Amino acid sequence: MSLQLYDLAGAEPERRFSPYCWRTKLALAHKGLAVETIPWRFTDKDVIAFSGQGRVPVLVDGDRVVSDSWSIATYLEEAYADRSSLFGGPAGKALARFVNSWADNVVAPGITPLVLMDIYAHLHEKDRAYFRQTRENRFGMKLEAVSADRDTRVVPFRQSLEPMRVMLAAQPFFAGDTPNYADYIVFGCFQWSRCISEFQLLTADDPVAAWRARLLGAFDGLARDALGYAV
Amino acid sequence: MSLQLYDLAGAEPERRFSPYCWRTKLALAHKGLAVETIPWRFTDKDVIAFSGQGRVPVLVDGDRVVSDSWSIATYLEEAYADRSSLFGGPAGKALARFVNSWADNVVAPGITPLVLMDIYAHLHEKDRAYFRQTRENRFGMKLEAVSADRDTRVVPFRQSLEPMRVMLAAQPFFAGDTPNYADYIVFGCFQWSRCISEFQLLTADDPVAAWRARLLGAFDGLARDALGYAV
Repeated sequence: MSLQLYDLAGAEPERRFSPYCWRTKLALAHKGLAVETIPWRFTDKDVIAFSGQGRVPVLVDGDRVVSDSWSIATYLEEAYADRSSLFGGPAGKALARFVNSWADNVVAPGITPLVLMDIYAHLHEKDRAYFRQTRENRFGMKLEAVSADRDTRVVPFRQSLEPMRVMLAAQPFFAGDTPNYADYIVFGCFQWSRCISEFQLLTADDPVAAWRARLLGAFDGLARDALGYAV
Repeated sequence: MSLQLYDLAGAEPERRFSPYCWRTKLALAHKGLAVETIPWRFTDKDVIAFSGQGRVPVLVDGDRVVSDSWSIATYLEEAYADRSSLFGGPAGKALARFVNSWADNVVAPGITPLVLMDIYAHLHEKDRAYFRQTRENRFGMKLEAVSADRDTRVVPFRQSLEPMRVMLAAQPFFAGDTPNYADYIVFGCFQWSRCISEFQLLTADDPVAAWRARLLGAFDGLARDALGYAV
């Protein structure tokens, strides 16, 4: 049974920039599962109405429909239990949830103001008004104001990665010697930026950049070869 | 063979406030290992010179001497592999290292300015000059200045715990349904404060406070019954 993934796309169908969809695509690759990705835009709510909600990723596996990146990862771990584990056991899964929360509450919000206008610039025309309105409501200001002063704001963002940097001095991946879903969670945030922005989130000598490079090369360069910027 | 732990103490020998020693004491309890704790002060460098360094925790297990809380945890996991696991496997251990780094780089530095003068007030007389000098060198200001405005500074500290709070909405412990070393790592930071300060790090309705209460009660109230403040 072939798998299908509804995957956020920009104006160009091959520009796939959702951090959450990247988590899922790397999880599928980790499990060795081929997937057909279907480009989807923010305003294509009707296209995924069958999933009972309005956001991607949405995974279709035969007659199973799963949305939300964390739910998809736990679904894949159970449905394909005979394949390489995404979590390395119950404790690993529970701690991956903390990494998920850290990525969603520290890493992603740190990146958002740095790349928000770049996202906007890459959106399909039909998504622009929706994106501007929903994000300006969320932030209480114009997109342009959210994205101001990014050369200054990148400094505390880089500082916020210090827990990761200290960990990477002792091991190459969150999961140890080889990556697992915890790595894909955080990597998705960086890949999001890479797909739509030339902005340098990391300095070249940052251990986080070396970790990102290792994951860009994973699964025969799945993330590296995606349409984006070589930053 | 009985275990011995050199454990940081204040003026009162039973006031044991090191966050790192608490990590170790909970790890020992998790393994079901009895330990003799030996009160130690910052300036007792000669007493632990046999460990090859000058900080606690130092664990003596027969002819083995292990210092540094992370090294002690990994030692215990290997030496007592037949007992309840501290990590739940290699991926759990690798992710616990990230939690360790997050605790050391976010949680502990967030608590330090809130309780620094309370630590000082509880020190043995012989430690006070050493503590003041080393900490004032580290912070580049007087202890009193580091600790100023704690009612204001507690706000960003509480905010920095948001990744933990979101995780706790889904599961009772970092490790899932039951605690493991990842929980003890972070809990040690809160127990550190509880042993020397009346300051309210957390609001009563904070899910982090409920998690802390669960760990205060663990191992027959090992942490709850330690000399400290009922905060």
